[in-house]
Amino acid sequence: MTTLGDSFHVYDTTLRDGAQREGITYSVTDKLQVARLLDGLGVGFIEGGWPGAMPKDTEFFARAASGELELSSAKLVAFGATRKAGVKVQDDPQVRALLDSQAPVVTLVAKSDLRHVERALRTDATENLAMVHDTVKHLVDNGRRVFLDAEHFFDGFAHDPDTALRVLEAGVTGGADVVVLCDTNGGQLPLGLAEVVADVIARTGFRVGIHCQDDTSCAVANTLAAVQAGATHVQCTANGYGERAGNADLFAVVGNLVTKLGMPVLPEGAVGELTRVSHALAEIANIAPDTHQAYVGSSAFAHKAGLHASAIKVDPLLYNHIDPEVVGNGMKILVTEMAGRASLELKGRELGVDLAANPEALTSAVRKVKELEAGGWSFEAADASLELLLRDELSELDAPPFTLESYRVVLDHRSDGEIGSEATVKVHVGGERVIATAEGNGPVHALDGALRKALLPHLSWLDAVKLNDYKVRILSGDGRDADGAGGTEAVTRVLVNSTDGEREWTTVGVHGNIVEASWLALCDALAHKAVHASALV
Amino acid sequence: MTTLGDSFHVYDTTLRDGAQREGITYSVTDKLQVARLLDGLGVGFIEGGWPGAMPKDTEFFARAASGELELSSAKLVAFGATRKAGVKVQDDPQVRALLDSQAPVVTLVAKSDLRHVERALRTDATENLAMVHDTVKHLVDNGRRVFLDAEHFFDGFAHDPDTALRVLEAGVTGGADVVVLCDTNGGQLPLGLAEVVADVIARTGFRVGIHCQDDTSCAVANTLAAVQAGATHVQCTANGYGERAGNADLFAVVGNLVTKLGMPVLPEGAVGELTRVSHALAEIANIAPDTHQAYVGSSAFAHKAGLHASAIKVDPLLYNHIDPEVVGNGMKILVTEMAGRASLELKGRELGVDLAANPEALTSAVRKVKELEAGGWSFEAADASLELLLRDELSELDAPPFTLESYRVVLDHRSDGEIGSEATVKVHVGGERVIATAEGNGPVHALDGALRKALLPHLSWLDAVKLNDYKVRILSGDGRDADGAGGTEAVTRVLVNSTDGEREWTTVGVHGNIVEASWLALCDALAHKAVHASALV
Repeated sequence: MTTLGDSFHVYDTTLRDGAQREGITYSVTDKLQVARLLDGLGVGFIEGGWPGAMPKDTEFFARAASGELELSSAKLVAFGATRKAGVKVQDDPQVRALLDSQAPVVTLVAKSDLRHVERALRTDATENLAMVHDTVKHLVDNGRRVFLDAEHFFDGFAHDPDTALRVLEAGVTGGADVVVLCDTNGGQLPLGLAEVVADVIARTGFRVGIHCQDDTSCAVANTLAAVQAGATHVQCTANGYGERAGNADLFAVVGNLVTKLGMPVLPEGAVGELTRVSHALAEIANIAPDTHQAYVGSSAFAHKAGLHASAIKVDPLLYNHIDPEVVGNGMKILVTEMAGRASLELKGRELGVDLAANPEALTSAVRKVKELEAGGWSFEAADASLELLLRDELSELDAPPFTLESYRVVLDHRSDGEIGSEATVKVHVGGERVIATAEGNGPVHALDGALRKALLPHLSWLDAVKLNDYKVRILSGDGRDADGAGGTEAVTRVLVNSTDGEREWTTVGVHGNIVEASWLALCDALAHKAVHASALV
Repeated sequence: MTTLGDSFHVYDTTLRDGAQREGITYSVTDKLQVARLLDGLGVGFIEGGWPGAMPKDTEFFARAASGELELSSAKLVAFGATRKAGVKVQDDPQVRALLDSQAPVVTLVAKSDLRHVERALRTDATENLAMVHDTVKHLVDNGRRVFLDAEHFFDGFAHDPDTALRVLEAGVTGGADVVVLCDTNGGQLPLGLAEVVADVIARTGFRVGIHCQDDTSCAVANTLAAVQAGATHVQCTANGYGERAGNADLFAVVGNLVTKLGMPVLPEGAVGELTRVSHALAEIANIAPDTHQAYVGSSAFAHKAGLHASAIKVDPLLYNHIDPEVVGNGMKILVTEMAGRASLELKGRELGVDLAANPEALTSAVRKVKELEAGGWSFEAADASLELLLRDELSELDAPPFTLESYRVVLDHRSDGEIGSEATVKVHVGGERVIATAEGNGPVHALDGALRKALLPHLSWLDAVKLNDYKVRILSGDGRDADGAGGTEAVTRVLVNSTDGEREWTTVGVHGNIVEASWLALCDALAHKAVHASALV
């Protein structure tokens, strides 16, 4: 299966429009890394930023041009604006910066809504058309391929279709070869948007692209509706990053185009990389991946309903809209109260633990999981603790890396208003008895600090292990969620997410005492690392 | 503007399908609270769960029927399955449980894909039709209104349209008055889905509803496309909670129906509550709100783009798809719905605190709320703490019922494996200095016990006050929801729900130390009761 080549463009703007998302600040090195990952995926175009307007973007293009970024198939795109009103295009420094960026493709943003021309650009319709035409022509004359982003197109077209179409025409007569209709404010719905796209194509015959924002939660659907109406160029961002509610998510758009509309928009093999690349890009953006994201989320194929588990095992495709492996994702069985043998065996396989060969261990593991879950444990989000439990049933675990003798935590709210937490642990590790004390900003922090202090001289791998996230849930005494009776007498469930810089894992601890529950989850986190550290030796 | 009444159904299934989301475990008290919030929003139907199948759901319906849940406009719905194959409907205990729930409406799930009938139900098409017809008729004969959820409808219809339509017909001849087409595996796109919906309506004339999952990231768009094709009943969940990628988000669907399609599907005034209710429901689900959620996310109208800043100031509607206040959201980074003067004044009125007469106190309260929320406090679900804050600004508070000198909590995990918690408090109450010590099954329990011991001889009303529920959320150091950065060094927010047997109230405490955060929330809980106890005298 070959791709559609230049006849269909997957155009990524993670580095420009995606960077508008609150909380994202890419360094130039980050940007280079993002571009490499996107190129590896086989997207056609990577919009790198706005050289001349943003110093970091100017540097990005300079470093890319100097050989730091070797793209195998994608074309690098510089984003910019048309010349200023009343200025010759040759004299406009912003336009010169676009040429200086050496990007082979330039996407020019143009106002297609007269209200914006007048109120934001403070010029008139005629000058606006000249600005579009002159700038496109100047860039094309200098050997660049030009796409025209028609900003606020749908609002402009609804308000005054002729003006909006004339802006597109000014771009195309200047030499632009795609006009991109932008739902800049994100207010469109698919059926109406598809009508406009079809109408524009019918009236102009231009090659049309689409750029959608997610303000109605329809960015992906709008993008697909535009393609079904004839658009052959889709602008997206990784994980839908973008201003306000974000942009159309590249992974959902591509997933849908390939698996639902049968369009080979990425090279063979690349679709199976979607999940990995999505997570890697979240890592670079320093944003926790959305576990419920379509196609690539870690829960996108997670099934909780225990009652269907046996049916799922027989015929997983009856319960999934696609085979998760197509997009490099996996089916996840959530172990809940209703877990049976089938789902636990499946889950074990997912965790690399083979229970099929040992039916007694499986029986015993099912019993143990049910007992624990009746007492408030939950392995749904704590794969690492479940893996330890299963390996223990199979007698695959070595002795634990350390044993606890005792700990004590003291919390003080003193009469001067000072609040302190101090923990002392006594542990046995590497044949020695070690006592260590640490302060912290809370009981668990102090306990974690004391434990690290005690163990670090003996367990060198501990240095890389960090706590990522810590979640607490209060349950009533019988292990169900607190129901009017429990209050502070309830049982506490703690989830700890840890990382060693390469992998992440989650462990669980449950106890009436929140500190002991945290302790149990911390111990599992270290035990999990110990298993995998020794496996690597 | 009146609503569409029974001619259009906003049907919420947060409590049943939404609870399938990984990580959500509602207690019965949570479920009652969720139902009250949804009723306040004016949705038509609230699906409460599956009585008979889930003990917690059976209890929820029992408590609802006993008067704990007074709905002002919504109808409570019990979800369930058709009778088992080969069993008389009168003898099926699951069907009896639906009647026993006393819910006036029942939504029955029926298989409309023959492959599922054969492989999951292990019966044949004829018996499946009889199961649907018998069960609907039995429920209708017993005075229930019945909706039919046609599971896997779109896959079934594509595979064998006649079989799928016959299932709908079996429901309608039995007396069901809406047939709900379910995209159970979530694989549909809007244009194709709209065609099927229109086709089904044209062929059958039945009243059609729609239930979409978000596996293609199109659940909201699919729901709207179905409405545009003639569906008059939409099934959604708050914030799109649900299995795998989730369900159609109630807030985006309603926001779109009202602001884009001009359909008054909620009572006047309710649309302005969407943001507040969305956040309160996230709080109850103990899931960090999605800041980039359409319409209701705190960043849904946040603008980063420096280039437009001045234009936005002049004419904000040019840069937003709607006026954010329509959905109770704000254009800037929104702290909560109460960040502004008007909404805080309104909220005060709701709590019986009149701020209108005292503009300085209002100004000062707005500033204080903003400061506290920037530090991680949240009053969205803690009305009682907010009321105290407002009364304090108006100098309406008497001296607090007691003052703290100091406390100390000691937690021991001893070498014999025993785990103990002991707290000592030193307080001033009724003109005396009192020292009291108590043990507990955790630090907060011990502290609560010691405090009660110290205060009870002096504050007789304390005896009736009980802790109902206790929730903990970990936030990163800057007070925003932890995004992988915090770990045990983060800030902790504690919500305490208390009752005196007649009323319930919720208070909040925030601190780096979880015990101190709990202490602050406990103190507010008692201070709130003190205000209301003295008011009653």
